[in-house]
Amino acid sequence: MNSKIKITLLAMFFIVFSCKEKPVEIDKDQSDNQGHPSLILTKSGVEKIKSHLGSIPIFDTSLENTKEEVDAEIALGIEVPIPVDYSGGYTHVRHKSNMVVLQKAGVLYQILDDEKYAKYVKDMLMQYEALYKTLPVHPKTRSYARGKLFWQCLNDSNWLVYVSQAYDCIYNYLSEEERHTLETNLFRPFADFISIGNPQFYQRVHNHSTWGNAAVGMIGLVMNDEELIDRALYGIKGVNLDKTAKDDDGGFLNKDGKAGFLANIEEPFSPDGYYNEGPYYQRYAMYPFLIFAEGLHNVKPELKIFEYKEGVLLKSIDALLNLSDADGDFFPLNDGQKGMSYYTSALVTAVDISYHFGTQDPGLLAIALAQDRVLLDDSGLAVALGIKNGKTEPFRKKSINLSDGPNGKQGGVAVLRQEAIELVFKYTGQGSSHGHYDKLSFSLYEDGEEVIQDYGLARFVNIEQKGGGNYLKENKTWAKQTIAHNTLTQNEVSHFGGKYEVGSKYHSELHFYDATNPHVQIVSAKEANAYPGTQMHRTFAIIKDEDFEKPFVVDIMNINSENKNQYDFPYYYLGQIMKTDFEYKVPSELKPLGKSFGYQHLWKEAEGKPASTNAKFSWLNHDKFYTITTTSDATDNLILARIGAEDPEFNLRREPAFIIRRHAKSTTFASVIESHGSYSPVTESAVNSNSNIKELKVVLDSDLYTAIEITTVNGNTKLFIIANRNASKVATHNVKIKDKDYQFTGAYYFK
Amino acid sequence: MNSKIKITLLAMFFIVFSCKEKPVEIDKDQSDNQGHPSLILTKSGVEKIKSHLGSIPIFDTSLENTKEEVDAEIALGIEVPIPVDYSGGYTHVRHKSNMVVLQKAGVLYQILDDEKYAKYVKDMLMQYEALYKTLPVHPKTRSYARGKLFWQCLNDSNWLVYVSQAYDCIYNYLSEEERHTLETNLFRPFADFISIGNPQFYQRVHNHSTWGNAAVGMIGLVMNDEELIDRALYGIKGVNLDKTAKDDDGGFLNKDGKAGFLANIEEPFSPDGYYNEGPYYQRYAMYPFLIFAEGLHNVKPELKIFEYKEGVLLKSIDALLNLSDADGDFFPLNDGQKGMSYYTSALVTAVDISYHFGTQDPGLLAIALAQDRVLLDDSGLAVALGIKNGKTEPFRKKSINLSDGPNGKQGGVAVLRQEAIELVFKYTGQGSSHGHYDKLSFSLYEDGEEVIQDYGLARFVNIEQKGGGNYLKENKTWAKQTIAHNTLTQNEVSHFGGKYEVGSKYHSELHFYDATNPHVQIVSAKEANAYPGTQMHRTFAIIKDEDFEKPFVVDIMNINSENKNQYDFPYYYLGQIMKTDFEYKVPSELKPLGKSFGYQHLWKEAEGKPASTNAKFSWLNHDKFYTITTTSDATDNLILARIGAEDPEFNLRREPAFIIRRHAKSTTFASVIESHGSYSPVTESAVNSNSNIKELKVVLDSDLYTAIEITTVNGNTKLFIIANRNASKVATHNVKIKDKDYQFTGAYYFK
Repeated sequence: MNSKIKITLLAMFFIVFSCKEKPVEIDKDQSDNQGHPSLILTKSGVEKIKSHLGSIPIFDTSLENTKEEVDAEIALGIEVPIPVDYSGGYTHVRHKSNMVVLQKAGVLYQILDDEKYAKYVKDMLMQYEALYKTLPVHPKTRSYARGKLFWQCLNDSNWLVYVSQAYDCIYNYLSEEERHTLETNLFRPFADFISIGNPQFYQRVHNHSTWGNAAVGMIGLVMNDEELIDRALYGIKGVNLDKTAKDDDGGFLNKDGKAGFLANIEEPFSPDGYYNEGPYYQRYAMYPFLIFAEGLHNVKPELKIFEYKEGVLLKSIDALLNLSDADGDFFPLNDGQKGMSYYTSALVTAVDISYHFGTQDPGLLAIALAQDRVLLDDSGLAVALGIKNGKTEPFRKKSINLSDGPNGKQGGVAVLRQEAIELVFKYTGQGSSHGHYDKLSFSLYEDGEEVIQDYGLARFVNIEQKGGGNYLKENKTWAKQTIAHNTLTQNEVSHFGGKYEVGSKYHSELHFYDATNPHVQIVSAKEANAYPGTQMHRTFAIIKDEDFEKPFVVDIMNINSENKNQYDFPYYYLGQIMKTDFEYKVPSELKPLGKSFGYQHLWKEAEGKPASTNAKFSWLNHDKFYTITTTSDATDNLILARIGAEDPEFNLRREPAFIIRRHAKSTTFASVIESHGSYSPVTESAVNSNSNIKELKVVLDSDLYTAIEITTVNGNTKLFIIANRNASKVATHNVKIKDKDYQFTGAYYFK
Repeated sequence: MNSKIKITLLAMFFIVFSCKEKPVEIDKDQSDNQGHPSLILTKSGVEKIKSHLGSIPIFDTSLENTKEEVDAEIALGIEVPIPVDYSGGYTHVRHKSNMVVLQKAGVLYQILDDEKYAKYVKDMLMQYEALYKTLPVHPKTRSYARGKLFWQCLNDSNWLVYVSQAYDCIYNYLSEEERHTLETNLFRPFADFISIGNPQFYQRVHNHSTWGNAAVGMIGLVMNDEELIDRALYGIKGVNLDKTAKDDDGGFLNKDGKAGFLANIEEPFSPDGYYNEGPYYQRYAMYPFLIFAEGLHNVKPELKIFEYKEGVLLKSIDALLNLSDADGDFFPLNDGQKGMSYYTSALVTAVDISYHFGTQDPGLLAIALAQDRVLLDDSGLAVALGIKNGKTEPFRKKSINLSDGPNGKQGGVAVLRQEAIELVFKYTGQGSSHGHYDKLSFSLYEDGEEVIQDYGLARFVNIEQKGGGNYLKENKTWAKQTIAHNTLTQNEVSHFGGKYEVGSKYHSELHFYDATNPHVQIVSAKEANAYPGTQMHRTFAIIKDEDFEKPFVVDIMNINSENKNQYDFPYYYLGQIMKTDFEYKVPSELKPLGKSFGYQHLWKEAEGKPASTNAKFSWLNHDKFYTITTTSDATDNLILARIGAEDPEFNLRREPAFIIRRHAKSTTFASVIESHGSYSPVTESAVNSNSNIKELKVVLDSDLYTAIEITTVNGNTKLFIIANRNASKVATHNVKIKDKDYQFTGAYYFK
């Protein structure tokens, strides 16, 4: 018998022994009514859960899965290794796994009344206590704020957010002495280290700090330590950071001197609940926001945290769910990794909390059903009961417009939706350090598939082979640059010269958004600062018209400048080229399109000239046909490009773009994007594979109005007019086009 | 009231009128017992179907769907336009649709006893009769055998195969005079035109001719015309074509002078049922083979057509189903379009007929269920009853080896299967005019997704924008060439110099195939003629071993040559490069890899040298990690290439390859391909993302044996030995490696 087995048997003996002895003590402890659990689980909530067990399928299954997982971990034995690794390395993964298992074991103890779970939590916490007091700062040096258990304070904070919950669950199971030991040697120094010990991490408005605040606050709530709670809500008293310093990502460390959990709600969320870094990072930040809010709601109801800033936390969940495509994948705005979706566990938390603490939106139950699991707490119970009681309804996403900025005055994001088509239009502020230089960019989806893509980030999160799973250098040289996006690049330089300090000063401005007409979903915004001296004004409409098989997209980009510039206007389509109505030449050798601002990463695969006043470009993607018809100038260059130049590690995806290049002062790019027909490789039949547009014309383009005329192949004409200045819903316009008068009220006309 | 409406009302009046009057006449006709229907439906079969209607769900649904479809067509009215278009054009599509609707309406008349269907068929046939007698040869001139209704005789034959069935169904509904009119002016001249009128189309062994034979034969069976039946079975008497002439695709028109339906079964099918052009064309040819066979079985049972050539027709269905991946998609060998699957309607015919006339394999019922429809005939009824009676079992695909050639002596195709991994190894003959120069090539699948791809064809079938939906010139310049495949190219020239006449003389030879060991699925074959003076011998094994997470692939290519050559050995992986263990340089401009034999279509994206005696290449595809570990020589060039050079119409997919280039005389490429671990973009966790192999060594490479040693990262070693000469199962071998003796019986050793 080796020594490891001996220890295990010894441990089992104690478990058996304690099972026989402890129950009395537990009852005594609980009868003390010291108010635990109180953080996420509550005493009354636990009783309610117990009373429903066995009759709430989604909750019962979630509980069963959690039990299986934790039982397997208990069987493997506790391991609390000395920290040495970066993300993906053994000790990192182990401590990350431990924090999750601790939280789950705590919950199981409460719900199942099985002491083995409490004992497991206690034993592991005691090992952490023994380890932590011996730990120096983590040996890996890459972070601006090194942790102790992990290479960065961020992960240490993750740990404490989870472990606070475990501690709360077994609080009454522990003796006062045990609690004293843990609080004195582990929790309090831990909370101090990630806050006072690392103000550059803690004392900011940033998703990292949100985790830090929540960690300090949650353990403060369990320990009933007002100083920690205060530090969590308002930041470290008397500490002010250098307002000009920057972090690893190039973002300002603390430009405005704000800090604490409330400031972290105040600043990044707009009143509509849009999070300034975009949905991918909102998803990451969501868990500490909501789980700490739930704890505050339970322990400090007087704070009315869910009503803070007019209920922005709950609004933000609704915003986040609406920033996902038909499959639930978040739109990869800014630094967003594709494939992240509302199936992630943070969104289980978000959906359950939103349902329970919000308005019991029956659509949320449909998402919970798709997620196929609930939180093992009061909110999860509420969802399970809602489902059980047949309240589920489909979660219907409609067009939505979300303001950006703390006061909702820094531009925004609109999602236009019409049948299976979704268009995402970004006219936000910079988006903090994870923002891209992509003013007035857009992306297009059909049936949850990307049609015209936003590239997202250049990173393979947690894939160690690819730069340790961290941001790759191509994220800066490619993914953030303007030319990587479906918007205008002037003179081969990114918006704001690609300078974060400059970009952070500005934001685009909404001209108008109107989703009231079921046939015309429309949004329009302006950008005046990306290129000094050049004004950009872009309008998108998805129009449902009887002459077209499916809704089509109108895209009008007005550019005003007194100087002649080179304008590059790309569409990052996905799929296989079917047809163009213009001639192009392919070179015998490929050269990069340029030298910097992302151009160095594009191969020029072909170049041509328009054959007429229109250029047509058709492709096939996911067995559907698409066509861009765009008004063109005889001097335009039409470029077919592909990502992948100057990419020595093959970090970039080799995906294509159709780029319209024009040399002009003021000009307008007017385009219609159609989805039409389909192809089946099984029946080998191509249906409606050609564009329905014979001609597209800009028939008026003045300071006040832009009008386009669409002639279908059947010879029908459609006229679309937009008021470039006065977008008031009640304004009346009188426009003369080709000697004919058009009168309309509101910002646009379509017929 | 315009004249069209008048005519419709008039027609309706007649329908109503005839409904009142005709039933008597029908009964009279049926009581004549003239033996109709007899072709696909039979009188007794129809009675049996009627007796089960309403209680056989999959049949009832298929019937309901057919009824809806035909009723909608009847409502639209009959249209028989003057033929003018190529495939995809209006008149082509209309006549194609008419033939299908006619066949279905005929069946509905029989099963539902509703005269409106018979009347519809009769009316349309009469319009065809009126039109056909006026028709010259089709105005479009592209085909080597122009039809009359369509631009090629092939489509005219399709039409007659379907319409014969419709005629059979309403035979007794028609007066003798009506039948005489149709047969004299439509059917007989139609059959003569596609046969006697076009011997270059009809008098061959080719899938086109199979359609022609079936068309002539089926109408012959309905008309009881022995001359036509004879012509269908044995070809046109006394007609012999120029044996050296070639068709549009570059294939010989009729090298051996054989013709007729039986020769078309004899020649292309091997005794195992493999069709020499590959599964994509077999799928296309399947319908006329089987539907005419069913007709022959019913009308001329004495022919015992399903027993012909030891039952090869039914065997061929089993072979075809086994030549599909886990999703039912056919492996795109030769000119195969990806995405074609057993969901195509020809395979509904195949599955139902195989079940009914074969051994009632319960696995076929699972495929029928997936297809979600059955034929509306005796065989469809048999399937529906089988399903209803709970006989369905999963269709389990195992490793399979299929011989090629009329006598099964011209090489073959093997599919090795182990858990979710499928490997397709091609060592066939040339594969007629649709064959590729790809001796000893392979492709790899996991979970039905391509991992290492066969490119398939360069064509977008029926997509008019892409070269009229026909073969693109890149099919010859790229898709058929050797370098487009995962096999050896010597000195940048394709196998057989890319010459069809040469390739058609030869085939590879099976060394051995053995799927009896559940841990080692293995196949080995040799090719001596692709490059005169060079022998190739390739062995694949999928090995399931406890030291590996999943089954891994061993790939050994022995090359024997007395001359020094350049060997290019590509792997067309799909996905994103994760890591290589060798350094490589990416050029600042891309140049094609060569000038001809497909090399002109490859961009050289990077080039490097091995860092050691192994080269390792890892990638991520569909959230799974893969690694090729290959033994390397210090002078090897490791090339990363991408398809797409010299592609002026963007006809090719921009997909990548990892190419090992070696200059040597005799040499061995020994590689292991691992699938390992997974990545989730939702949890952002990468599991088992590294190869399990520390080192791969060729420890013996003689004329008699090749042995490789695999050392895992844990330091365990595995030895794999293959006998290069004597592959007998009972042969005993004694091999000395590093002074150690290994004894084994059979063709290989693994431990």
